Amino acid sequence: MICEILSVGTELLMGQIANTDAQYLSRRLSEYGVNVYRHTVVGDNPERVKLALNEALSRSDMVITTGGLGPTEDDLTKEMVGEYFGLPMELHQPSLDALTERMTRLHPHRKMTANNLKQAYFPKGALVLPNSRGTAPGCVVEAEGKSVAVLPGPPRELTAMFDESLEPYLREKTGLVIHSRFLSIFGVGESTVESILEDLFHLGSPTLALYCGPAEVQARLTVCLPVGEDPAPILDPVADQIQRRLGPSLYAQGRDASMARTVLSMLRERGEALCTAESCTGGLLSARLVEIPGASAVFTHGFVTYTPAAKQSVLGVPQDILEGPGPVSAPCARAMAEGALAASGADYALSVTGYAGPEGGTPEDPVGTVYIGLARKGGSLVKQFRFLGDRDWVRTLACVHALNMLREHLLDV
Amino acid sequence: MICEILSVGTELLMGQIANTDAQYLSRRLSEYGVNVYRHTVVGDNPERVKLALNEALSRSDMVITTGGLGPTEDDLTKEMVGEYFGLPMELHQPSLDALTERMTRLHPHRKMTANNLKQAYFPKGALVLPNSRGTAPGCVVEAEGKSVAVLPGPPRELTAMFDESLEPYLREKTGLVIHSRFLSIFGVGESTVESILEDLFHLGSPTLALYCGPAEVQARLTVCLPVGEDPAPILDPVADQIQRRLGPSLYAQGRDASMARTVLSMLRERGEALCTAESCTGGLLSARLVEIPGASAVFTHGFVTYTPAAKQSVLGVPQDILEGPGPVSAPCARAMAEGALAASGADYALSVTGYAGPEGGTPEDPVGTVYIGLARKGGSLVKQFRFLGDRDWVRTLACVHALNMLREHLLDV
Repeated sequence: MICEILSVGTELLMGQIANTDAQYLSRRLSEYGVNVYRHTVVGDNPERVKLALNEALSRSDMVITTGGLGPTEDDLTKEMVGEYFGLPMELHQPSLDALTERMTRLHPHRKMTANNLKQAYFPKGALVLPNSRGTAPGCVVEAEGKSVAVLPGPPRELTAMFDESLEPYLREKTGLVIHSRFLSIFGVGESTVESILEDLFHLGSPTLALYCGPAEVQARLTVCLPVGEDPAPILDPVADQIQRRLGPSLYAQGRDASMARTVLSMLRERGEALCTAESCTGGLLSARLVEIPGASAVFTHGFVTYTPAAKQSVLGVPQDILEGPGPVSAPCARAMAEGALAASGADYALSVTGYAGPEGGTPEDPVGTVYIGLARKGGSLVKQFRFLGDRDWVRTLACVHALNMLREHLLDV
Repeated sequence: MICEILSVGTELLMGQIANTDAQYLSRRLSEYGVNVYRHTVVGDNPERVKLALNEALSRSDMVITTGGLGPTEDDLTKEMVGEYFGLPMELHQPSLDALTERMTRLHPHRKMTANNLKQAYFPKGALVLPNSRGTAPGCVVEAEGKSVAVLPGPPRELTAMFDESLEPYLREKTGLVIHSRFLSIFGVGESTVESILEDLFHLGSPTLALYCGPAEVQARLTVCLPVGEDPAPILDPVADQIQRRLGPSLYAQGRDASMARTVLSMLRERGEALCTAESCTGGLLSARLVEIPGASAVFTHGFVTYTPAAKQSVLGVPQDILEGPGPVSAPCARAMAEGALAASGADYALSVTGYAGPEGGTPEDPVGTVYIGLARKGGSLVKQFRFLGDRDWVRTLACVHALNMLREHLLDV
């Protein structure tokens, strides 16, 4: 089934809000094997809404509209859908009753206006979808072999109406489910991943797509099957291929995978604890860890020592390191990690010190240079990195590389 | 000038990301009086990209595309634009040099692939727009009385390229400059700000718009003038009005204003130092401070004490507080702040402890309860907050409220 999403709202064209409605619908529709081929946004203008609706219906089996369902004069989506199919607008008594009840409760002294009443009218024969979070119900109109679902614009009303009414409708209509597998890859560029996996892009089923993050690539395998069919025989062999070709660069599987999640779960399995000592990342690394529910079992202490004096007093970095090689240096990263390990009693300490920019840096260590230290009982190591990008980007990369350094160490021991 | 935005990316149609690119562009274009009539999203499919591009160009003077500019096979936007106007693709030597330089620096041992090279080719005669945050440059193609701007999909690359290259292009094309004034307001709801400033929305020039952030509202005054005209006589009187009506709730002016920036600059003027002690925010508060360039003059130490044992060993929170009122309590927030003050020697310490959820909380202190402590030499105070929302939202609100608590204290003394 081919579907398009048509969003109506001048606030979208003014950039006041992002089209999260289209995102939500697309994500949910993909789960039902509904192929979304296009999103369109037009303003609250009858001619342009009509044109866009005609175009969308000419190309697809189903159109879902969002917005333009409220009580004001320029809310015209429902009326345009009726007009397209030549269906007159008819009063839907249960909607009028619900609207009256709601209005009386919220505004006991206000009279219903003609505009309010408009919300209880639908194209003849429409399936009305109740709105549990607002006044304007939606509807589905089926005619001429097409269906049009008309949903409200406010995201909390839209998501509730989808989940409560449109989802059951779709499940019955399609009998299909989408199955996906996500594989997260660290430290290999998108174009390299693409050339390593080149033949797998042409399998037909499953389909393979790549998505880029900071120093990461996520590969997604997708197959669409009738309800009840097992996707494993189709997805598993290809996932195994990818795993074999990428080796330890493939660090996790699953939709919600992240480097922090992977490292925390490796540590949790071993019953080991981690602490951090940060300078240029200023707490971002610890925040990454704490954002994973259950982090407290593994992550105990974080030290943000932004000044040389703090590095000395809290982590015991020796004066001669701070005055010699300086606070951005391999010896300092090592001393920070070792100091944090001693102060916390954790099993591992990660330290980060560098020049995030835009100022700072030296001829030898320009902006973007970051030293990452890893200390454990009985030893420590330091790596030097050169990251390109602005302050935020350098720090984001420093965090994922620090976590990956620990991951690689845990894989080896 | 009528404009459409055409976004290319299967990840948008799969609902993996929202189309924030179209939002950003629409917002910025509206400042230049460019009317955006439509957003369209299509997948990485040559035929559908071509069709959508033809349609968009038939309806408008300018089309801005986003996405499909990377090194992979299905990145075809630039090529489609060339094809539309019958322009051959030509090598752009400066782009190739920049690409080579970047690749050599990042991956000294990796060879450039044909796919990489593709990024240095543009439709003949195109104005190339450098990409300061990624490898793929964009371009503007002017032909047949239309212009097409081809921009990258990743939001951080897109926004930088717009600001650095497309905005100057638009300014020259339109002969107009937008002048804006930003006023940041803390702790007053959007609808309250709206009613306080109601008459100022109807001035015509400047225009006033409100944007909502976590516990904040940003008011923006905008006027569009021919190049060289002074905006101060139009903007200043209205900005002064807003300042008078909102009093100390208006905490900063300027596009890049943030509570962290305001607090840091207040402390810098006084020559005073700040440290932090965080539990549920896990380093987010310190990261907020460190992300401001020059923070090291003011922000010295951050302690992330996520476990009760860490609160005790690092900050000296007494055992009887941890066992009595517990780690999420007013006494614990106070002891954390006082402990951090003592350990760091700073002039002020902010502490945060709370239940960010989804688990945790007690009948008296449900999820969303956060205690914020402020210690200074000679005294300390604690406030209790109840925030509504998910884990991230609770922690974001906790950070801005902590900073505002210090700001209000500094205003009083």
